[in-house]
Amino acid sequence: MNWLNVGQQSLGCIVTSMEKINNMTYAPVTDVLSGKLAVDSEVTVRGWIRSRRDSKAGISFLAIYDGSCFDPIQAVVPNNLNNYENEVLKLTTGCSVEVTGTIVESPAKGQDFELAATDVKVVGWVEDADTYPMAKTRHSIEYLREVAHLRPRTNVIGAVARVRNCLSQAIHRFYHEQGYFWMSAPLITASDAEGAGEMFRVSTLDMANLPLTEQGDVDFNEDFFGKETFLTVSGQLNAEAYACALSKVYTFGPTFRAENSNTSRHLAEFWMVEPEVAFADLDDAAKLAEDMLKYVFKAVLEERRDDLEFFAQRINKEAITRLEKFVESDFAQVDYTDAIQILLDSGKEFEFPVEWGIDMSSEHERYLAEEHFNAPVVVKNYPKDIKAFYMRLNDDGKTVAAMDVLAPGIGEIIGGSQREERLELLDKRMIEMGIDPEHMSWYRDLRRYGTVPHAGFGLGFERLVSYVTGMANIRDVIPFPRAPRSANF
Amino acid sequence: MNWLNVGQQSLGCIVTSMEKINNMTYAPVTDVLSGKLAVDSEVTVRGWIRSRRDSKAGISFLAIYDGSCFDPIQAVVPNNLNNYENEVLKLTTGCSVEVTGTIVESPAKGQDFELAATDVKVVGWVEDADTYPMAKTRHSIEYLREVAHLRPRTNVIGAVARVRNCLSQAIHRFYHEQGYFWMSAPLITASDAEGAGEMFRVSTLDMANLPLTEQGDVDFNEDFFGKETFLTVSGQLNAEAYACALSKVYTFGPTFRAENSNTSRHLAEFWMVEPEVAFADLDDAAKLAEDMLKYVFKAVLEERRDDLEFFAQRINKEAITRLEKFVESDFAQVDYTDAIQILLDSGKEFEFPVEWGIDMSSEHERYLAEEHFNAPVVVKNYPKDIKAFYMRLNDDGKTVAAMDVLAPGIGEIIGGSQREERLELLDKRMIEMGIDPEHMSWYRDLRRYGTVPHAGFGLGFERLVSYVTGMANIRDVIPFPRAPRSANF
Repeated sequence: MNWLNVGQQSLGCIVTSMEKINNMTYAPVTDVLSGKLAVDSEVTVRGWIRSRRDSKAGISFLAIYDGSCFDPIQAVVPNNLNNYENEVLKLTTGCSVEVTGTIVESPAKGQDFELAATDVKVVGWVEDADTYPMAKTRHSIEYLREVAHLRPRTNVIGAVARVRNCLSQAIHRFYHEQGYFWMSAPLITASDAEGAGEMFRVSTLDMANLPLTEQGDVDFNEDFFGKETFLTVSGQLNAEAYACALSKVYTFGPTFRAENSNTSRHLAEFWMVEPEVAFADLDDAAKLAEDMLKYVFKAVLEERRDDLEFFAQRINKEAITRLEKFVESDFAQVDYTDAIQILLDSGKEFEFPVEWGIDMSSEHERYLAEEHFNAPVVVKNYPKDIKAFYMRLNDDGKTVAAMDVLAPGIGEIIGGSQREERLELLDKRMIEMGIDPEHMSWYRDLRRYGTVPHAGFGLGFERLVSYVTGMANIRDVIPFPRAPRSANF
Repeated sequence: MNWLNVGQQSLGCIVTSMEKINNMTYAPVTDVLSGKLAVDSEVTVRGWIRSRRDSKAGISFLAIYDGSCFDPIQAVVPNNLNNYENEVLKLTTGCSVEVTGTIVESPAKGQDFELAATDVKVVGWVEDADTYPMAKTRHSIEYLREVAHLRPRTNVIGAVARVRNCLSQAIHRFYHEQGYFWMSAPLITASDAEGAGEMFRVSTLDMANLPLTEQGDVDFNEDFFGKETFLTVSGQLNAEAYACALSKVYTFGPTFRAENSNTSRHLAEFWMVEPEVAFADLDDAAKLAEDMLKYVFKAVLEERRDDLEFFAQRINKEAITRLEKFVESDFAQVDYTDAIQILLDSGKEFEFPVEWGIDMSSEHERYLAEEHFNAPVVVKNYPKDIKAFYMRLNDDGKTVAAMDVLAPGIGEIIGGSQREERLELLDKRMIEMGIDPEHMSWYRDLRRYGTVPHAGFGLGFERLVSYVTGMANIRDVIPFPRAPRSANF
């Protein structure tokens, strides 16, 4: 067999390929609908029936979806095909087909091209159309979560998957163009020093027959790694080691939190993007965050317009406008101390009281971004007592060089900091926070040998997808979500 | 602060950016060495000292490395700088510096440009040059593994990191251009059906105080996910669900094996690339594997020539030539049955005896690729008894539509198959292999509702990096390797 790439481009998410196999020209639906293929040419499309409509004149209209773009293609099937009565008229939603035909301009609204079918080959039937979970009726998003293996066949989850891919490709492209190196941080770790959250234990010990030490404790020396190990909560510390050698790196990988919080904003397993830059300060990190977010939002606006239009129609009417506004905004910047004063002066009644030293809650963050600044805001220089040990102490002795990026419509989307590069101050913070510097000796080495100012941030990838699509529950923007009491598929 | 992108390109790994901050022009070393910046322009480079050499004439030569490319830049420092005696002459390997100067053509061999320094700012000293683990002396690769947080500062591990990034970017680019969607498969899974290997348990149960059922077994109902869960060994089954909705998808994420094998080819945690394609057969998967490998090898040959030249000099003298040969080869294809006959007819004495039905070992695979075909080989249609339950049964009833891609110099680099899309045959295989079809009901659904022929493969990403770099031990091509009794950093 032979693949023939036709009209391959290198721009954006819209690139696809057509294949010529045994003299049959297979084309993704997107190539036909976008007008990439000439009218009157003969192609075969392969996909799944979205719907079938039969006219009184003896013609059937099949909507065929292959996932390559939001829209299905319409195939117009005449009743003189051999299998018209026996097969075509029996097609139901979800059946898989190969339809050959000629590309013609479509007289119908909402599409420029359709297929005048000359052959319909049924590849796979649906066992029982009445009980097929993805039958044409619209389903609740909660129900779809229970059939996560079939839900990518729906409009909404298909669109999420394409947008998710577009965002991930744009992230890699952005960092690559800026001279960053992607690196993988380890998933299994013996370090729980960051204290960013509850962790999952990773073990191969036989739980029915645990080895014990002489003191009667579980003997992790007998475990696979010879010690107690967990799933990582962040790749940052590892990324710092690489930034202190290669200058500009980023991770894009899974991280884990064993928090028993059953909310629409939390997952036990989620993907994080964590850039780390040597010779950079907090302002550099803020600028990088702004550049990155604008870059990926521009990409999705250009490349997945079809899916965004669906989200704007059905999920959140501001799905497109808020992205357009975002990429044109100048980010506001405000010190934490000033932000607290703004909240105090706002005259608003907040559920959680405002005072210097609090960890702002979502209502505070959204007030700042949506009402006060009406733009994305970078809040900087937080009280050291609510932040992690590795953040750089400011000269005031009270605050650290931390930042959060707050976006209108979602609140915090990025959290970052300049890292403490001064060994004495790092040690002091660790001891204050009950971390034994000895346990962090490798991390301390980065400060002992050619230390440099460096900074970075973390972006929760699912929060980003949620923001772009308007999907309210984060479980709907990752293919197979993991949450308390939920690890199916 | 303000970042000014100069001469940004969109091609390959060589793109970087120059920043102008407070009227200081910061440039990555690669931009200076590649001639991207004009001779006589003033720039500041930031990085770490590789070496210092002082001439009798009162000039010092600093080699400054920032990770942006293989080579450091040479800064020529005159002795009339204020801090020449007190600082410059005390610089040792690993110190971090900012050096400002004028770009001049270099009279020295091996570099086209160097920096005539006008200012040397020491950012971070090395605590004790004599005990600095990365001091100039060459270290054994085994020793470097013990200082994985510092080893990216070496020539060899820095080069590995850049090649690893280049390969990963090329993989994403290849699939994106071909119309594939990246998807994330879940890492934590309750399914151990594939049987691809030993698994790590993931749990939040208190091991010192395990909850028990009335029967005295560990009560996983009390665990985080309400059942026993593990780290995934493959994202394939999940990818199939998405391919059966969106046609072309791929995963690129971590997978895990709890096998207690302390070899140079195994990791407990490694990254896999797993494309999955609907309406595709085994030959399509083989073609996709060939196209992908050639694409990424071309990318690394074009974009990381500097690092490859180092590998060819120091690690494996065929590092470049075998990639060049690979991208120009026509892949050979051979049926497993014929391959066995070739081995039997070879007259060679193999350590492991050859007969139909064996799982070929590395010596067999390498004989085929290196001696018999002298080209990459796709071996197809393996005996069903040595392959997984999901592989499509061939008409002979004895073999399945499985393939391995064997590369000269490494052996198996890709394993894939056409998947069994026929429900009755899938059920039969599961029962034969002791898998309860009930436990796989979601996977069976893909065959009950609009089933399609589909195929895919898995590429171990570290095996790929190992092949390209010539690094013999897979622990040296991932930043922080995980292996039995080894989970440091």
